[in-house]
Amino acid sequence: MNIGSYSYEEYIHLVKSFHGNLAPGLLVGGFIVDLALKRLPDGEFFDAICETPVCLPDAVQLLTPCTIGNGWLKVLDFGRFAVTLYEKKGGRGVRVYLDMEKIKAWPEVHQWYLKLKPKKDQDLQRLIDQVKEAGHRLLSIQSVLVEPEKLRREKLGPVTPCPVCGEAYPLGHGDRCRGCQGESPYLETVKLDDAPPGACAA
Amino acid sequence: MNIGSYSYEEYIHLVKSFHGNLAPGLLVGGFIVDLALKRLPDGEFFDAICETPVCLPDAVQLLTPCTIGNGWLKVLDFGRFAVTLYEKKGGRGVRVYLDMEKIKAWPEVHQWYLKLKPKKDQDLQRLIDQVKEAGHRLLSIQSVLVEPEKLRREKLGPVTPCPVCGEAYPLGHGDRCRGCQGESPYLETVKLDDAPPGACAA
Repeated sequence: MNIGSYSYEEYIHLVKSFHGNLAPGLLVGGFIVDLALKRLPDGEFFDAICETPVCLPDAVQLLTPCTIGNGWLKVLDFGRFAVTLYEKKGGRGVRVYLDMEKIKAWPEVHQWYLKLKPKKDQDLQRLIDQVKEAGHRLLSIQSVLVEPEKLRREKLGPVTPCPVCGEAYPLGHGDRCRGCQGESPYLETVKLDDAPPGACAA
Repeated sequence: MNIGSYSYEEYIHLVKSFHGNLAPGLLVGGFIVDLALKRLPDGEFFDAICETPVCLPDAVQLLTPCTIGNGWLKVLDFGRFAVTLYEKKGGRGVRVYLDMEKIKAWPEVHQWYLKLKPKKDQDLQRLIDQVKEAGHRLLSIQSVLVEPEKLRREKLGPVTPCPVCGEAYPLGHGDRCRGCQGESPYLETVKLDDAPPGACAA
């Protein structure tokens, strides 16, 4: 059994190294992305949509060329365990999702996903075994037409130093950067020395 | 010269494989994250803030344990080229940013970041050479105190099948999932067969 272009064991290793632990969601997510890749027409440039920020985006980033930083992965906060891969110009693609009817055949998966028993009573190994055994059988597929305009990342446009903090920001955000417009998460900032111990140039 | 726990060459290889190409932003980003890691007190659990969605989140994901899927990386749309690593309970951390005064000493970097000349007139190799030569000297550091409450990911809470599409969603989103509340990016969805060619279970 492969997941994307990896063997099952290679994928598990990658997940632990990238995501930090073998979360069941990454394992289900591996099968979701794998199935979407298998159903995608060959040889097209595609973008990805992930319908939850929890776990699943990392499966997309590990198994496809789409990442948060390169803009080919969009994360929607719908809380649905689903991934769509679509041809970025025309919008044609496939959507694979965790099917609530199908997971009933795998009790640990069903109870885990719908939170039917407290985390402390879950048997993680049995859950992982059931996901591995079920594989694609937990999933359903749709053919979709995406409205690419709705998901396109806005161009940054002109960039200029902020008159308050001095850092460059997109002029389109206003007369100062958003950090200086009161959205900053920092209660306190203090500039440190320029010759930090251990830091060096090339 | 190392970037995080990688040699310069290993990091370049990782960037190409994960991000798809050697974007100059990933190279600057490598130095930003490297410097933040060097200045972070040892042995603490930390979270990351990336102040732009463009390129930089991938440097964080490659060089730290923080990813989008595990929730330890928060991406803010401030358009500032800055990364903060902070201790997740107390909020103490370091913020490293691209310093608009310092980059003036590296003309290709200055012109690239502030978009002072059209992309077609940029010399990509010279830009990459200047970033490599400058390294940490493009950057400044702040000690910061983060308000962790402002960045904490909301708990999903109870999950239930949506009465419209049948997929599970967080009850806190309303009486149906956000996809069925009209936020869907899909113009069309058609369910496909359950026995896809090439798909298989474990």
